[in-house]
Amino acid sequence: RASWGQQRAPGPRPSLIAINPLMLQTPPTFGFLFDIDGVLVRGRHVIPAAQEAFRKLLDSNGQLRVPVVFVTNAGNCLQHVKAQELSDALGLKVTRESASSVLGRNPVSLFISVPLVGACVGFQNVVTIQDVRKAFPLLDMVDQSRRPKELPPPTTDFPTIEGVILFGEPVRWETSLQLIIDVLLSNGNPGAELAAVPYPHIPVLACNMDLLWMAEAKMPRFGHGTFLVCLENIYKKVTGRELKYEALIGKPSIVTYQYAEYLIKQQVERRGWPSPICRLYAVGDNPMSDIYGANFYNRYLKAACQARAQAEVKRSVGVADPQSEDHSEPKEDWYVSLESCKSILVCTGVYSPHGDVPADPHESTVETVFHGHRDFRFDTSLLEASYVVQDVNEAVELVFEKENWSQE
Amino acid sequence: RASWGQQRAPGPRPSLIAINPLMLQTPPTFGFLFDIDGVLVRGRHVIPAAQEAFRKLLDSNGQLRVPVVFVTNAGNCLQHVKAQELSDALGLKVTRESASSVLGRNPVSLFISVPLVGACVGFQNVVTIQDVRKAFPLLDMVDQSRRPKELPPPTTDFPTIEGVILFGEPVRWETSLQLIIDVLLSNGNPGAELAAVPYPHIPVLACNMDLLWMAEAKMPRFGHGTFLVCLENIYKKVTGRELKYEALIGKPSIVTYQYAEYLIKQQVERRGWPSPICRLYAVGDNPMSDIYGANFYNRYLKAACQARAQAEVKRSVGVADPQSEDHSEPKEDWYVSLESCKSILVCTGVYSPHGDVPADPHESTVETVFHGHRDFRFDTSLLEASYVVQDVNEAVELVFEKENWSQE
Repeated sequence: RASWGQQRAPGPRPSLIAINPLMLQTPPTFGFLFDIDGVLVRGRHVIPAAQEAFRKLLDSNGQLRVPVVFVTNAGNCLQHVKAQELSDALGLKVTRESASSVLGRNPVSLFISVPLVGACVGFQNVVTIQDVRKAFPLLDMVDQSRRPKELPPPTTDFPTIEGVILFGEPVRWETSLQLIIDVLLSNGNPGAELAAVPYPHIPVLACNMDLLWMAEAKMPRFGHGTFLVCLENIYKKVTGRELKYEALIGKPSIVTYQYAEYLIKQQVERRGWPSPICRLYAVGDNPMSDIYGANFYNRYLKAACQARAQAEVKRSVGVADPQSEDHSEPKEDWYVSLESCKSILVCTGVYSPHGDVPADPHESTVETVFHGHRDFRFDTSLLEASYVVQDVNEAVELVFEKENWSQE
Repeated sequence: RASWGQQRAPGPRPSLIAINPLMLQTPPTFGFLFDIDGVLVRGRHVIPAAQEAFRKLLDSNGQLRVPVVFVTNAGNCLQHVKAQELSDALGLKVTRESASSVLGRNPVSLFISVPLVGACVGFQNVVTIQDVRKAFPLLDMVDQSRRPKELPPPTTDFPTIEGVILFGEPVRWETSLQLIIDVLLSNGNPGAELAAVPYPHIPVLACNMDLLWMAEAKMPRFGHGTFLVCLENIYKKVTGRELKYEALIGKPSIVTYQYAEYLIKQQVERRGWPSPICRLYAVGDNPMSDIYGANFYNRYLKAACQARAQAEVKRSVGVADPQSEDHSEPKEDWYVSLESCKSILVCTGVYSPHGDVPADPHESTVETVFHGHRDFRFDTSLLEASYVVQDVNEAVELVFEKENWSQE
């Protein structure tokens, strides 16, 4: 396994000594959410600005000075593997204790336990596309070399499929597209022939809606969102109807940010920081997932703040709040501290400015072609980043300045 | 290589003795165009009705009694291989002399020599998707196992690509989709980064627009048309613009039928039949390619007949025809004999009637969901077959009856 390549020599590797952070600096009241591809790395190569940034983020003992969560839509490798690769490149001891990764599919474990409206609760028995392909060998016909030579006996004991979860881009899209469509058109019994197209179809969840992501090539590469474009349009062409997702997980979905906030809080507890985190800064390269997502979450936090403030006023003047009638004490979420999630767009990835980076980082960065998922065309103002900077190092410097945080 | 399987024992294989056909029967003035998948075969298995049909079509010496051309959109095997496979299954000596196959891509050789409006003439130097992938190894990123371990040196001597021809469904659609989009967005120099999306893009030709085709599975399988749906919609999503084809070849495009007519004439000459062919019957299972195509061609033939009749009238009364001013004799095409191309829809393939086959074969078969290519939404009345029958054997019987042709 190739480790992350480095284009310049890294700094000295910090040693790990546990020191009471209270002795070092004012505890942080802000934290970072970092996208990975296009912000910290390009394919297998770490971006030099990322190493600069993390030299500022680490104390002399190699520990993070502020909470950090890596939030990526990529779902194709194990959580701890990606975290380990990152740590090697950034000179950071990244473990599940000191920092956390939110991969595109993590919130599914949170989500699965939440009852889905009108659909199944919890997926107990999971089959893969390959399982379906082997059980029904007449369905995958594009690759002539894989077509069966003999007519196989019909499959009788394959369980009815009740839902479809799409984690990330498969290999051999034609196979997955064909079999998923077969599953949807047969109501979960591929190979069957139904007189009419069943609609609504069985539930479909998708993780990671990114149309594009930044690898080493100069132009961005297809992401899982491109696979979804194919699936949605094939379904529409064949049936005349729209494919509808039960849930879309990963940035810019709110669920992803709620999970990231949960991980931030875990870090605060583990590090023993006494003050809660009030402000998050989300650094990303993809306006439609990173910026839209952070702004969407910011809007959600503001609305939640406002609702809490109004409820607090009502309580203090003795007006009964229907939502808290059954509790003698305020619910735990009244102690929610997070107030904002500001978005910072970098120019080292999917987003590429025309000409120089604007001197004014507040300059608008609205896209002319909408690359977001078709279900998210709510509000294009959400595509505008709070700040636009050249790279992640400038992002960290900007935040430290705003927070009056020492650069060292 | 597996040969076409047979579900019932074939009849005796006819011996081949050349006999002057004039001694046998009135020479034919009609001919057949047969689709293959879903009409004669299902995957590797010949449909029994096809064997019945060909027993009627062959004389006691194993030769065709009327001209026959196989017109298929499938382009993935060599012409002579597919013809040989068919002959084994149908008890027919199919060679390039006795019958012809029109594969989806054949008209390209006719077409390439025709100047394309505003585009290149003739493709001299052909590269494949695999060539592009090897020359630019950072572009195909979906399959992690195929990603390069080291950053390769930049490619400098790859020729600029000037056009794209899509022959049929590739394997690993993600690779082809990604690289074709890269070629279009880079104006033929993949790997380059252009400030703006070049538009119009370089020419794109596609052979075979079939969304679906009938293999052994009960429900039809994705065809090249499904791949095109992916390509068109990805291009639209990424650029905000429509992908435009320079040409779409294969049924229902007229070019395919013109080529089939040319092959019919070749057969007539080789067999020494003295009378020209006036009527064609096109038997197919796919309303959007076979029926639409035949009807489209029928309309074209009628219009051409009418134009010739009008010109003839003018000539006979001495009015100068601007089109023939420079010729002392009428042009060769005044002797065109073909008057009609009638469509016959069978129920053994993509098209499946709801309930029984209508007793009245003229009953309308208009599709409710349009499966044709987005560029062909001209006239849905062209989806109505002249006749609907159960299978190709009934189709042959129907035609013999209409033509007062002996069944034996």
